[in-house]
Amino acid sequence: MLKDNIIPFWLKNGLDKKHGGYYTALDRKGGLIETDKSVWFQGRFAWVLSTLYADFEKKQEYLDAAKSGIEFLEKYCFDKAGDGRMYFRVTEDGKPIIKRLRYYFSETFCLVAMAAYSRASGDKSYVKKAREILDNIDRYQKEGLLIPKFDAGNRPTIAFGPPMIMLATVQELRKADPENKDYYNKYIDNLLKNIQLFLYEDKKAVLEQCNPDGTLQDHFEGRLLNPGHAIESSWFILREAIERGHDETLKALGVKIFDWMWEWGWDKEYGGIIQYMDVLGKPKSEYHHDMKFWWPQTEAAIAALYCYYFTKDDKYLEKHDMVKEYTKKFIDTEYGEWFGYLHRDGRISTDLKGNMYKGPFHIPRMYMKCAEIIDAINAK
Amino acid sequence: MLKDNIIPFWLKNGLDKKHGGYYTALDRKGGLIETDKSVWFQGRFAWVLSTLYADFEKKQEYLDAAKSGIEFLEKYCFDKAGDGRMYFRVTEDGKPIIKRLRYYFSETFCLVAMAAYSRASGDKSYVKKAREILDNIDRYQKEGLLIPKFDAGNRPTIAFGPPMIMLATVQELRKADPENKDYYNKYIDNLLKNIQLFLYEDKKAVLEQCNPDGTLQDHFEGRLLNPGHAIESSWFILREAIERGHDETLKALGVKIFDWMWEWGWDKEYGGIIQYMDVLGKPKSEYHHDMKFWWPQTEAAIAALYCYYFTKDDKYLEKHDMVKEYTKKFIDTEYGEWFGYLHRDGRISTDLKGNMYKGPFHIPRMYMKCAEIIDAINAK
Repeated sequence: MLKDNIIPFWLKNGLDKKHGGYYTALDRKGGLIETDKSVWFQGRFAWVLSTLYADFEKKQEYLDAAKSGIEFLEKYCFDKAGDGRMYFRVTEDGKPIIKRLRYYFSETFCLVAMAAYSRASGDKSYVKKAREILDNIDRYQKEGLLIPKFDAGNRPTIAFGPPMIMLATVQELRKADPENKDYYNKYIDNLLKNIQLFLYEDKKAVLEQCNPDGTLQDHFEGRLLNPGHAIESSWFILREAIERGHDETLKALGVKIFDWMWEWGWDKEYGGIIQYMDVLGKPKSEYHHDMKFWWPQTEAAIAALYCYYFTKDDKYLEKHDMVKEYTKKFIDTEYGEWFGYLHRDGRISTDLKGNMYKGPFHIPRMYMKCAEIIDAINAK
Repeated sequence: MLKDNIIPFWLKNGLDKKHGGYYTALDRKGGLIETDKSVWFQGRFAWVLSTLYADFEKKQEYLDAAKSGIEFLEKYCFDKAGDGRMYFRVTEDGKPIIKRLRYYFSETFCLVAMAAYSRASGDKSYVKKAREILDNIDRYQKEGLLIPKFDAGNRPTIAFGPPMIMLATVQELRKADPENKDYYNKYIDNLLKNIQLFLYEDKKAVLEQCNPDGTLQDHFEGRLLNPGHAIESSWFILREAIERGHDETLKALGVKIFDWMWEWGWDKEYGGIIQYMDVLGKPKSEYHHDMKFWWPQTEAAIAALYCYYFTKDDKYLEKHDMVKEYTKKFIDTEYGEWFGYLHRDGRISTDLKGNMYKGPFHIPRMYMKCAEIIDAINAK
């Protein structure tokens, strides 16, 4: 599936041979519907291609395509004349279109791309560049370059996204830079401490944002649960448990988060992981709360296998199979790749294959991670 | 309906007797689900109450409640220590929570509230205050205080929202300040010129954003049509046609926009005005594109009557009736008021009665405007 469907779909339709880098806004058949480029996806696809090359198959086409994204990132995606932060969206020839004011996720995806590319290409200068991005992310926060959404004085708020994405990000950098393992381990220890602030034991739920001390914000955003997001974090944590010699505390944490958020997220009526829930059961303000997006499903598929790896409890294999069965609704048997957006009952909402948020990342990552963990299960 | 259902629902459940102002985030039964206050709705509900008092019924309760919102706005909703712009969201006791960086719609809704309140209360100081807000909106733009979403150099962009909302805003101010009619008429002439830039004759559509010369931006946002939004503008324009002695050019413009966007917006399969379309028929990136929100329906109900008023063509009465019939899906016969968010096929997505975007505005405005235009039709 990965090598004869997903990757070829994007290499054929998404590579920009003229300017370098990748288009991701493609219609059902792979036709281009938006020439602007997502900076996230320059990093994400370069990460996928580099990882595929480094860890699965030494195909020159993968390395060349990875290089194209890396070069596009370096050339066009940093605000070099300004504060050095990265853009969110650029034209096909690299002119800035949107620079976000609050987030640093363009940076995290560029960082993992460079880390993986250093492993794929053997060019160690990319380890150094990736590390510089990490240091810059720290600097933004220290210098207050990012504008918080909520007034920091009247509603001090922490969000789950940053520590959980940083966990996966630093894991990738450590893999490329094992000599500095101790530094990254300490960095990750701190992230894991932060991640645990979002556990809301009362309701057995992982919050998406809360007060800095981990208490609930009884507001729309504070009550909002994003089960797919939390489930994604569960396998980041279980991956860390493996790295730390099968650390029992981390294992218990990862499995607990999966168990909790599966309960919240799995739609017992229609199947699939639902987009949002309200932790106090109040009505949701997000009107697309009951949709099924592709990525919570891919994350649940990975996480269930990780849980099985650690527990050998068949219920996790069953859950993996439930998700796998459900993902058939996303697969486009006619034109390849997956649809991204289903209504709650499984009907397709929009049949595009990519935009600024969907592209070659979660799906190829799922195939790669599942292959890895299945190997580990079999080897155990 | 308006006086014995909609308004009592909000007066009973939305008034904050302790701090003043209004809550709008209410569940189906009117229970409070979010204590934060929408600055938009402090202005919008104060406008509704003031207009109801000034033009429909001199009920002290309306005037008192209007005053409460006006005072809350003046006391808490301006960044007095900063650049003077308004907040978007504040705590129930008026502490700032969110201040938007790109928009001035808090200002426009505050302005119309003050204009209407001056008519209701007879306190002319509110005309002066409303005029100051108008001048401030002009100043923000001159001084570049608002951050554009798209890079102004690489993708200069104009958006339909500002001139169309400003049209309705200045109309309200003119009504409260007839002595300065000439100034407002000139202001509106300029807005009407800007509004016409968004007419895309090729596809008989009103664009939501485009290049400054009115040409299409073949990007997700440039292709996105919001039929309810354009239909809303059609009755603002027809209202202006009446003000200008039944100006034929404005009449033709308003009716054309309604005709065009009804074609784009009316869902021939399930009924109702659909949320988004793509002007080139490409797949939509907004995954909630096919939902039915309450407000496009209310705007279509008003606009169809305006078109009938001018044309005496029964097809507009039929369209009004089609919308009226469809809106029954929104009406909560058990607990009052309307639901706001339906799936394409009419099933309810979330049953809340209000949040930061839905509250006492479009629905009461529809009842008031329809009553007005029906009177005008009968008087003609």
